[in-house]
Amino acid sequence: MRDFDEHNITQAVIDRFAATPDPRLKRVMTSLVSHLHDFIRDIEPSFAEWQAAVGYLTRTGQMCDDKRQEFILLSDTLGASMLVDAINHRMPAGATETTVLGPFFIDGAAAFANGADLAKGVEGETLFVEATVMSAAGAPLAGATVDVWQSDAEGFYDVQRPERDEHALRGRLRTDAAGKIWFRTIQPAAYPIPYDGPVGDMLRATNRHPWRPAHVHFMIAAAGYETLVTHVFVAGDEYLDSDAVFGVKNSLVTEFTRHQSGTLPDGAPIATPWRHLSYQFGLKPSADKGAKHD
Amino acid sequence: MRDFDEHNITQAVIDRFAATPDPRLKRVMTSLVSHLHDFIRDIEPSFAEWQAAVGYLTRTGQMCDDKRQEFILLSDTLGASMLVDAINHRMPAGATETTVLGPFFIDGAAAFANGADLAKGVEGETLFVEATVMSAAGAPLAGATVDVWQSDAEGFYDVQRPERDEHALRGRLRTDAAGKIWFRTIQPAAYPIPYDGPVGDMLRATNRHPWRPAHVHFMIAAAGYETLVTHVFVAGDEYLDSDAVFGVKNSLVTEFTRHQSGTLPDGAPIATPWRHLSYQFGLKPSADKGAKHD
Repeated sequence: MRDFDEHNITQAVIDRFAATPDPRLKRVMTSLVSHLHDFIRDIEPSFAEWQAAVGYLTRTGQMCDDKRQEFILLSDTLGASMLVDAINHRMPAGATETTVLGPFFIDGAAAFANGADLAKGVEGETLFVEATVMSAAGAPLAGATVDVWQSDAEGFYDVQRPERDEHALRGRLRTDAAGKIWFRTIQPAAYPIPYDGPVGDMLRATNRHPWRPAHVHFMIAAAGYETLVTHVFVAGDEYLDSDAVFGVKNSLVTEFTRHQSGTLPDGAPIATPWRHLSYQFGLKPSADKGAKHD
Repeated sequence: MRDFDEHNITQAVIDRFAATPDPRLKRVMTSLVSHLHDFIRDIEPSFAEWQAAVGYLTRTGQMCDDKRQEFILLSDTLGASMLVDAINHRMPAGATETTVLGPFFIDGAAAFANGADLAKGVEGETLFVEATVMSAAGAPLAGATVDVWQSDAEGFYDVQRPERDEHALRGRLRTDAAGKIWFRTIQPAAYPIPYDGPVGDMLRATNRHPWRPAHVHFMIAAAGYETLVTHVFVAGDEYLDSDAVFGVKNSLVTEFTRHQSGTLPDGAPIATPWRHLSYQFGLKPSADKGAKHD
């Protein structure tokens, strides 16, 4: 076929994918071509605009390295990541809601015993975290793996501190026989997503701010359950209603209760004000076929 | 707003672009979010699939350098470039049809006088090109700038030959008082688009071949006319009906007539077989508002 015009080219391109061996890939490419062409027909880009789009995507790819994933940021800020999340988590009652993984997770963080201090010397207001991991049906899950990561008091993750040569404010714990973990850390702060790249250019050009409300990330894995990726957000944060990556759900917002000195839940005395986070997670059985196409 | 789900998140993200100062950018972002989310809802990607898509786009950006533009290749092979082209060139009678720029154009190629040999020693069957540049209404255009670029006899452009330290098979000519240019070169060959990157991965996974039928690129600029970007294709090429970038139009396919030795059109004797390309281009007046949003 030749002589493609703006009306017949879409079907011609879809036909070119007819011999794709993997039916799922064929379905995805067909849908991609259809939606991409509809987008182009809708906005009728000039050549200069299309070149600008190509240049933008190129810069986004070239901004990525082992500590920075700009395409995830772009997906996050366009609400695409949370939409993929929603589609993959049609949740049963009792299961904790999910949210985006974000770009700061590191696989294989150091293991800590319950009661440990994850701050590793990073300064901030002491936060004592207690959490229980349950099945959605309400049974405590012993031996679950809990990955935790969070920003410091200035809103930066350890990987954003080039002067640091070891990780901090992240680690892996394991639930005890009652399904509990507990640890010390510091109160996290609201922070802007990295905005010195193409995603920052987009936010500036559209009068959007780059801020995320303060939160602690959790990823919880237990045999027989879907791995839970979520955050717990600090109630009262000014960015809860305008999170740059659309990640806030009301069920994930909770008080990080402030106390004046006294005694921590593990019995240790503390002379300064401190915060207390107590949260209960519910895991969805992996028998539930919620995830797509895995 | 919080508690986004797969049904309400699209409008929430569109609302976040409400304060975009530039109305065109606001229109583009609104359409992008709407079509991107529709695509996601249609295919319901798993997390692993979405991560694979992010990784694919990242590799595509990182494949680009000053001699390689993988995102243009991706746009070309998905038919997007030809769709943008079609939207920007709703042509009047007498005007030459347009096609993709492709990734091998170089701005500011060396100037040549009419009659010059653009092959600069590259081996191949001699091709003598004569072309006339007219207005769509049929008047010859003197002093038009004609950029020409093409592959060698093995299907490679000069920029794909790392051992070459100067350009070949490309250059800029100027039409004489009768609107004519003429030059010597060699017969171009069909060639595969570069397939050692993410675009090649996509073509392999979908059983598509990477070949483009043999052609010579032309970009023609004259004051008062829209710049014409097009190719002239070699009649009889086996890939005319399956061009990997959907760029073929019947009006751009012509005989590169083969002759046995004799005399070239400029009077020079030639002892070997040679080809003759004669083509007439028609330029669209720039007063015609065909291009979008420039």
